[in-house]
Amino acid sequence: MKKKNSPLQILKTFANPHPHRDYEIEHIAPEFTSVCPQTGQPDFGTIRLLYIPDKLCVELKSYKMYLQSFRNRGIFYEDVTNVLLDDLVQRLKPRHMTIISEWTPRGGLRSIIRCEYRPAKP
Amino acid sequence: MKKKNSPLQILKTFANPHPHRDYEIEHIAPEFTSVCPQTGQPDFGTIRLLYIPDKLCVELKSYKMYLQSFRNRGIFYEDVTNVLLDDLVQRLKPRHMTIISEWTPRGGLRSIIRCEYRPAKP
Amino acid sequence: MKKKNSPLQILKTFANPHPHRDYEIEHIAPEFTSVCPQTGQPDFGTIRLLYIPDKLCVELKSYKMYLQSFRNRGIFYEDVTNVLLDDLVQRLKPRHMTIISEWTPRGGLRSIIRCEYRPAKP
Amino acid sequence: MKKKNSPLQILKTFANPHPHRDYEIEHIAPEFTSVCPQTGQPDFGTIRLLYIPDKLCVELKSYKMYLQSFRNRGIFYEDVTNVLLDDLVQRLKPRHMTIISEWTPRGGLRSIIRCEYRPAKP
Amino acid sequence: MKKKNSPLQILKTFANPHPHRDYEIEHIAPEFTSVCPQTGQPDFGTIRLLYIPDKLCVELKSYKMYLQSFRNRGIFYEDVTNVLLDDLVQRLKPRHMTIISEWTPRGGLRSIIRCEYRPAKP
Amino acid sequence: MKKKNSPLQILKTFANPHPHRDYEIEHIAPEFTSVCPQTGQPDFGTIRLLYIPDKLCVELKSYKMYLQSFRNRGIFYEDVTNVLLDDLVQRLKPRHMTIISEWTPRGGLRSIIRCEYRPAKP
Amino acid sequence: MKKKNSPLQILKTFANPHPHRDYEIEHIAPEFTSVCPQTGQPDFGTIRLLYIPDKLCVELKSYKMYLQSFRNRGIFYEDVTNVLLDDLVQRLKPRHMTIISEWTPRGGLRSIIRCEYRPAKP
Amino acid sequence: MKKKNSPLQILKTFANPHPHRDYEIEHIAPEFTSVCPQTGQPDFGTIRLLYIPDKLCVELKSYKMYLQSFRNRGIFYEDVTNVLLDDLVQRLKPRHMTIISEWTPRGGLRSIIRCEYRPAKP
Amino acid sequence: MKKKNSPLQILKTFANPHPHRDYEIEHIAPEFTSVCPQTGQPDFGTIRLLYIPDKLCVELKSYKMYLQSFRNRGIFYEDVTNVLLDDLVQRLKPRHMTIISEWTPRGGLRSIIRCEYRPAKP
Amino acid sequence: MKKKNSPLQILKTFANPHPHRDYEIEHIAPEFTSVCPQTGQPDFGTIRLLYIPDKLCVELKSYKMYLQSFRNRGIFYEDVTNVLLDDLVQRLKPRHMTIISEWTPRGGLRSIIRCEYRPAKP
Repeated sequence: MKKKNSPLQILKTFANPHPHRDYEIEHIAPEFTSVCPQTGQPDFGTIRLLYIPDKLCVELKSYKMYLQSFRNRGIFYEDVTNVLLDDLVQRLKPRHMTIISEWTPRGGLRSIIRCEYRPAKP
Repeated sequence: MKKKNSPLQILKTFANPHPHRDYEIEHIAPEFTSVCPQTGQPDFGTIRLLYIPDKLCVELKSYKMYLQSFRNRGIFYEDVTNVLLDDLVQRLKPRHMTIISEWTPRGGLRSIIRCEYRPAKP
Repeated sequence: MKKKNSPLQILKTFANPHPHRDYEIEHIAPEFTSVCPQTGQPDFGTIRLLYIPDKLCVELKSYKMYLQSFRNRGIFYEDVTNVLLDDLVQRLKPRHMTIISEWTPRGGLRSIIRCEYRPAKP
Repeated sequence: MKKKNSPLQILKTFANPHPHRDYEIEHIAPEFTSVCPQTGQPDFGTIRLLYIPDKLCVELKSYKMYLQSFRNRGIFYEDVTNVLLDDLVQRLKPRHMTIISEWTPRGGLRSIIRCEYRPAKP
Repeated sequence: MKKKNSPLQILKTFANPHPHRDYEIEHIAPEFTSVCPQTGQPDFGTIRLLYIPDKLCVELKSYKMYLQSFRNRGIFYEDVTNVLLDDLVQRLKPRHMTIISEWTPRGGLRSIIRCEYRPAKP
Repeated sequence: MKKKNSPLQILKTFANPHPHRDYEIEHIAPEFTSVCPQTGQPDFGTIRLLYIPDKLCVELKSYKMYLQSFRNRGIFYEDVTNVLLDDLVQRLKPRHMTIISEWTPRGGLRSIIRCEYRPAKP
Repeated sequence: MKKKNSPLQILKTFANPHPHRDYEIEHIAPEFTSVCPQTGQPDFGTIRLLYIPDKLCVELKSYKMYLQSFRNRGIFYEDVTNVLLDDLVQRLKPRHMTIISEWTPRGGLRSIIRCEYRPAKP
Repeated sequence: MKKKNSPLQILKTFANPHPHRDYEIEHIAPEFTSVCPQTGQPDFGTIRLLYIPDKLCVELKSYKMYLQSFRNRGIFYEDVTNVLLDDLVQRLKPRHMTIISEWTPRGGLRSIIRCEYRPAKP
Repeated sequence: MKKKNSPLQILKTFANPHPHRDYEIEHIAPEFTSVCPQTGQPDFGTIRLLYIPDKLCVELKSYKMYLQSFRNRGIFYEDVTNVLLDDLVQRLKPRHMTIISEWTPRGGLRSIIRCEYRPAKP
Repeated sequence: MKKKNSPLQILKTFANPHPHRDYEIEHIAPEFTSVCPQTGQPDFGTIRLLYIPDKLCVELKSYKMYLQSFRNRGIFYEDVTNVLLDDLVQRLKPRHMTIISEWTPRGGLRSIIRCEYRPAKP
């Protein structure tokens, strides 16, 4: 069900130009914003995406549009971090991926969520 | 006995939305204050909570209220850090948890306490 | 009326050891905390006191106790800054005084209040 | 005409508790976001409001809601800064007011707009 | 003669939306690069443009293109700073303008050039 | 084919003066610039080269000229980082090498690419 | 012999309130000063003590007094760091301890000494 | 009386090599320490001396020895700052002098004292 | 006499390309080194030169060579700052000039010397 | 041959006061300067020496004099770092040693060299 609402189809890719080598790509997006489903107030955070591409790399402009699709969507910190990982893993099928979300303070508390994907070993 | 005085029941939880995956949640609370039991003077510190949730996540607002319950309580640095860990482990039964407390200087000395929980291996 | 509740009498003073010269004393208190009268939540801030003493200087330990007397008192940002200035001017009768309060973020907003006293010219 | 679209009526006020004295209030909002009317892309910035209140102070929560009303509105940097000043001057009738908006980089360029209000001297 | 080579015509403008008020616009461009006419080596610097608009504001995208037109042009630090001021004053006819160029170190020396325009008083 | 366009021949070397020992050389170039092949806009970044020399070290001035040869060349982030590694490995035949490229923000996104070379074990 | 001169007896302890768990205590003392035995000039440094308590914790005020006992004592950097470790290990019998001393520059040189204690394994 | 105890005679001077010009000399001493006369505890601070020499400059090594003469002397913040100014003015007869003392926190309070000398105009 | 030893003749100039306007040039040289005439030990500092050119600008490479001519010369902080100002004023005849020298710590003391030239008004 | 020119004999040592324990000594020298043998221009860098002493420690003042002996010597980055390691290992026969040299930028490039000594295992 969730996948229906997920803007997964926005994400465009291009062929990894150097697939013979494991190398790491990091994109840091300090302008992420979504909405707290409990209070209706906007949340602000930085999303760090790190991955080792296999056959596909994410195209930067489409990744920005994908992140912007959360702008008016109600979703919790823990959930958004895992959804980003699920979506990007499904789309890119990377060799490794980490998502770290760092949120601006609310009520004097600052939160950071980290999650990671490693493909199952054959 | 201690548990009687502990405001453990303030802590609310919600179901971990992604229990199939190990991921880390960090909450940083720079506005923690308690009272030194020896001098009666207020202490000020930052509490960093890091954990890998199992079935439960801590609800942020209740966690803030829980921390505020120490505001007028007399308790030493070493003790408060361990009590926080004991309370949160008991309530959340996490896969892993660390508490780090960093205190503002007293008499030219600055203190940091770190403690960690790992469940016993079966 | 307000003066009745004000802990003005806590403030101790000592004779300015160098009254023949205009010089400036600054005390910075980064551990100030009071309570928001609307929400009942604790507020945290830094109080900067700058003054040119005339006959009296404020004794540091009593000034710390005076600031601590606001710990469980409900009072707004704008009000506490002006009350501190009124109290300290009344007690020290300085040649000049400034109070600056800088508050930790609430709801994504950070506030700073500045107020100043200059004696009326004869 | 513009005033019709302006969410001026969201702003609530309270009586200045110390009108006998000129003092300065500063609110810093690092989570401001609006939309570029040309590209449709979100803009992100920090809004600094500094003012000397006369009879009225702006209530913080309503000020936050007022700033949030720009979230999905298309408006240029120069315009939003002046509109904020016009709205807040009309509502608060302050003795002095400054608005500074600092924007995150676009195309490698970072912009800052500063505008100021002083009442005409009688 | 110099004006012939100057890419002045790239600069687009739009009508100042708030001409009734003196306010300041600052654009900071940390990605400026030109070529040293003596050594043929690239120079790198940050260009800060501050101005009070009269009837016209500079359009950001065209300003970026204008700065990029210096990318392969041989010109000294002192010269480029004054040329930028001359061009922008001629195009915008502002009430006030300052250009500050800050250059990355060459041979252990770091340079900063500041120049300013004020219209002659009538 | 790519090698034809690569300015590999610019790179000069000198004999490693201490080949009996594994030691690491790092060169940090914060003034790298190339051109985005999609938009034609200049990109700016910092290139960090770390390597353990075997028989050859890269001569600094020629390395600077080599980096400058990308100034007006259209090439993507991921590609340039791998090309730098391929070229420098081919020329220096090092015991180990890492290239890290850190790019200035575009559209609110900041990117970092890391790739590494280790010779195959015999 | 050295122990006679050592102010070891100043150090007071209290029972570790949570001996069932390995946790780390760090005390940072940025106001340490002793005297150089060669030049008679004062030395200034920061002493960082990290330890895992077994049965005993060091009482903070007595630790401060202990550090102050070096104020007019002639002792070299390397020596004082090891003496602190020897004294504190003897007094606290910890599970693990590290002392790091960081000294302000002398003659353009800044020094850091690190030493560590691990009990012999049975 | 005070002058008897003051180590004024330690201060050596040399002839100002450029008396025809007003220029400013600043010496920053971050390793100042004295003793609190009330508690007997050491105080730590940074002493900044700024002056425009007339006929005499203070010799640096003797100035360091002079500051060290306060090491075991009981004296308050406000007093020491004024005594330093009195001593140095008496010894150097400068055209202008400022002393700023910045003290490390005590009881959560950080203090700064500033005092200044200008010769009476003839 | 002093002028004989001064390496004034190293300084090359070029014609100010924009003499019709007062603008400021700043060169920051963080790698200045000379020798203390008393101890024979090297001194290290940063020299900041700010000036408003009249007919002449200083050529950067020759200015670097001029500063390097002090590398093995014995000269005090106060003296070198004034000598730099005298030399550069004599050579450039600027409309205004400031020299600021900031020195690395010696014996726990850090020094800054500032001197300034304004031509006598006709 | 090289050893003839090396100022190895300047280095004085003293007996390690605590040889029964492995501990680390770090000396950071931010004022190192030598001469580029190619251009004749001075180079500036920071030398970090870390070692675990065996029987001998390096005496600080002689180490400073040793570093100063490179002041007018022509030597490349890679070479000086290895020579320092060779000299200090030969003189101190330490249990472990690392030398890290960090150089100020030249031509927009900043370099860092790291080398390490571990005695052969018996």
